[in-house]
Amino acid sequence: MIVVRTVSDLRAALRPLRTGTVGLVPTMGALHEGHATLLRAARAADATVVMSLFVNPTQFDEQSDLAAYPRTEPGDLALAEAAGVDIVFAPDAAEMYPRGFVTTVSVSGIVAETLEGAERGRSHFDGVATVVTKLLLAALPDHAYFGAKDAQQVAVIRRLVADLGIPVELVVCPTSRDADGLARSSRNTRLSPDERARAVAIPATLEAIRLAVQRLRAPDGEPPGIPGVLGDDPFGALESWAVAGLETAGIHPEYVAFVDPVTFAAVHDVTQPVLVAIAARVGATRLIDNIVLGGA
Amino acid sequence: MIVVRTVSDLRAALRPLRTGTVGLVPTMGALHEGHATLLRAARAADATVVMSLFVNPTQFDEQSDLAAYPRTEPGDLALAEAAGVDIVFAPDAAEMYPRGFVTTVSVSGIVAETLEGAERGRSHFDGVATVVTKLLLAALPDHAYFGAKDAQQVAVIRRLVADLGIPVELVVCPTSRDADGLARSSRNTRLSPDERARAVAIPATLEAIRLAVQRLRAPDGEPPGIPGVLGDDPFGALESWAVAGLETAGIHPEYVAFVDPVTFAAVHDVTQPVLVAIAARVGATRLIDNIVLGGA
Repeated sequence: MIVVRTVSDLRAALRPLRTGTVGLVPTMGALHEGHATLLRAARAADATVVMSLFVNPTQFDEQSDLAAYPRTEPGDLALAEAAGVDIVFAPDAAEMYPRGFVTTVSVSGIVAETLEGAERGRSHFDGVATVVTKLLLAALPDHAYFGAKDAQQVAVIRRLVADLGIPVELVVCPTSRDADGLARSSRNTRLSPDERARAVAIPATLEAIRLAVQRLRAPDGEPPGIPGVLGDDPFGALESWAVAGLETAGIHPEYVAFVDPVTFAAVHDVTQPVLVAIAARVGATRLIDNIVLGGA
Repeated sequence: MIVVRTVSDLRAALRPLRTGTVGLVPTMGALHEGHATLLRAARAADATVVMSLFVNPTQFDEQSDLAAYPRTEPGDLALAEAAGVDIVFAPDAAEMYPRGFVTTVSVSGIVAETLEGAERGRSHFDGVATVVTKLLLAALPDHAYFGAKDAQQVAVIRRLVADLGIPVELVVCPTSRDADGLARSSRNTRLSPDERARAVAIPATLEAIRLAVQRLRAPDGEPPGIPGVLGDDPFGALESWAVAGLETAGIHPEYVAFVDPVTFAAVHDVTQPVLVAIAARVGATRLIDNIVLGGA
């Protein structure tokens, strides 16, 4: 495994390897088993596996979040090597955003403006879209791997890749979870033992919603015992119920949303395919999670 | 020469040709000798020459200008073939901007916000930056050719190519001019004979400014007889003189500007390298032109 710090070194390293496919796994470091899943998927599919490691300052809406973001490069490199990565691209901020940098890739519309876009501000997805465009153009991979946990990020990236015509196929891997269901995230390391225990309410709520929707869709089963769920707006009723449940569990939800998995437009018809997304604060740490329920 | 209408057909046509270099000449059609210069430069340097032909609706700030923009595809294809083009990429608007398209490449800062950016509005260079990014990613050329007449457009494209790391080398060819000095432009066909005669005042003014600056820089020559030119702001004096001269010639200048050729920041020191840019209306037609004067 080699580590390169500049785009030109990355391109030089890749040049003789273009006879086979190239897979790119973009990361912000602080690697965990979720990243390892992406790296293994790339290793299985591509002749050359590139992992980028860059904590992108432009996508952080809170300076405190950027400052607190875990940086663990030695451990990250060991995990990458164990997962069979060929090339780690680990630029510094001056390589990615040299003096005079003034270009932004911006995705507008519901997909970028709702949920995370609304909570974290427009600059968040502008930062994501710009850095992912740069990483894709630096490596020009055949495949790029992303985790389903960041569902809206994936939808935004899918949009910009299609709109700009970046020649890459996106591969979305299922969310990696701890044994108790908590989605793996670099931010989980910030949770106290008590917060870690409370955080399980997030995947538990998603699972409860999955079961409730299953029962609502069943032609002759017993409906779930959730107030209002048999009325005009079953997802609205589930949302209120879930928000109350999370608060009872000592978690502060920012949203519990039922949206189209591609466009992120709100879904109201319980038979439609739906992405159920939660963002919540557990103590000072903001966590997100989601599940997708196919159409009935 | 083949004509393709979709990005996937363009990529399929280019795939077997990647053993040699690819040159891209982006055009909006209505080809004239200026475009032929770009095509010949590409033909001389590259194994494969691609010309794109797309009147990009998103960069027009005035619907009337878009509607009036000349569309002459049969003649354009004949000129392209005569110049040795291998592949013409002529998509329609639905291929470039399919339903749901929501991504914008935006260059901010002085280079995009002054002069043309101020006169034509922010959407003009956003439209240019987005379409050029798409064309470059569709063809992934080794070289892309642009005319020096569109100096600010070139500066904006240079910026986005560097910032996003698009792997292409830009080649800027000198402005092509008619015998009387008028810069060749697809818009020149809209001028009446009288307007065509008046329009020569634009390159004549640029030439007069060149000579005046030359004399100002000469250590012991006679200074030009232009009011205020020996004061604190020689370029300001030249600007006032040029604006008055153009108005006398029956032309309506939008700006006569003295800016840094790369950053487009205003230049005040007569010894610095400077791009002298003019935008003016001749009747209903808006024309631009410029010259670059190296440093003293």
